[in-house]
Amino acid sequence: MRILGIDPGIATVGFGIVDSERGSALHMVQYGAILTEAGLPLATRLFQINHDLEELICRFHPDAMSVEELFFNTNITTGIAVAHGRGIILYTAEKLGVPIFEYTPSQVKQAVVGYGKAEKRQVMDMTRRLLKLRTVPRPDDAADALALAICHARSTTSLLKQNPQAKPTV
Amino acid sequence: MRILGIDPGIATVGFGIVDSERGSALHMVQYGAILTEAGLPLATRLFQINHDLEELICRFHPDAMSVEELFFNTNITTGIAVAHGRGIILYTAEKLGVPIFEYTPSQVKQAVVGYGKAEKRQVMDMTRRLLKLRTVPRPDDAADALALAICHARSTTSLLKQNPQAKPTV
Repeated sequence: MRILGIDPGIATVGFGIVDSERGSALHMVQYGAILTEAGLPLATRLFQINHDLEELICRFHPDAMSVEELFFNTNITTGIAVAHGRGIILYTAEKLGVPIFEYTPSQVKQAVVGYGKAEKRQVMDMTRRLLKLRTVPRPDDAADALALAICHARSTTSLLKQNPQAKPTV
Repeated sequence: MRILGIDPGIATVGFGIVDSERGSALHMVQYGAILTEAGLPLATRLFQINHDLEELICRFHPDAMSVEELFFNTNITTGIAVAHGRGIILYTAEKLGVPIFEYTPSQVKQAVVGYGKAEKRQVMDMTRRLLKLRTVPRPDDAADALALAICHARSTTSLLKQNPQAKPTV
């Protein structure tokens, strides 16, 4: 199964693509970020995110998208902007028929490190190790996206271990 | 000039279409709301908003879209959901080449009632009167959308009065 992890945003949308074999083998296919210029109108940036994400999906044909849920206790202005971008990301996956799975940051930490309150640095290092990479992927948004992909791979694997008939549902 | 006012949301996206002649004459063309079911996944609801809004734009060919800016001091969860919807609305206008104009609630009140701190009821009643309607449009989201369209009509009119060469810009 090929999983596209997405760390939502407006200026930077991190993406990470991971192939997961039944069992536990994980293979990194590609990672990076969709970047939009700060000076452009919000609508233009959203249009570009849709365009680039469609291109990515059409090129790599993921079987599932794993995207972070939004929680904001801090900067509401940033939260509102990210939510605009997240709307476009969900829309694009829906349009192209890619099943969507959402995970909280603590679910990602639990799945990758085994501890829901792990430090960001621990998540990044474990992501690097699980994918057999020499260095932690850059930018951080791409590393976060790979962690989201791993999280879904492991959640699906444990679902399958519990019940071999289980199919992921949205 | 034909203006499409939009009150953003997920469950209910209010819309109101107003024709504005140079000077001050306003004519209500259509109003209503795009409704999405609460039980559906967010991505499906976003997909439907895009679909219905594209249909509306293709049917009525607005020259401009007037959409509310988001400010949240109260319910952040609602704010995040509305921002997802607003992302799709901006994207749809951008995709179909409709210029986008954004106004704050107090700019709308100022333009419609002449007082930036007017009560919601005053804005609704003035919207009804300016468009020569018998009753205040329902739902409230549609009335808000008509007020947004009026706000842009009046802003454009005053721009033109100040400078007859002025062209709206995004």
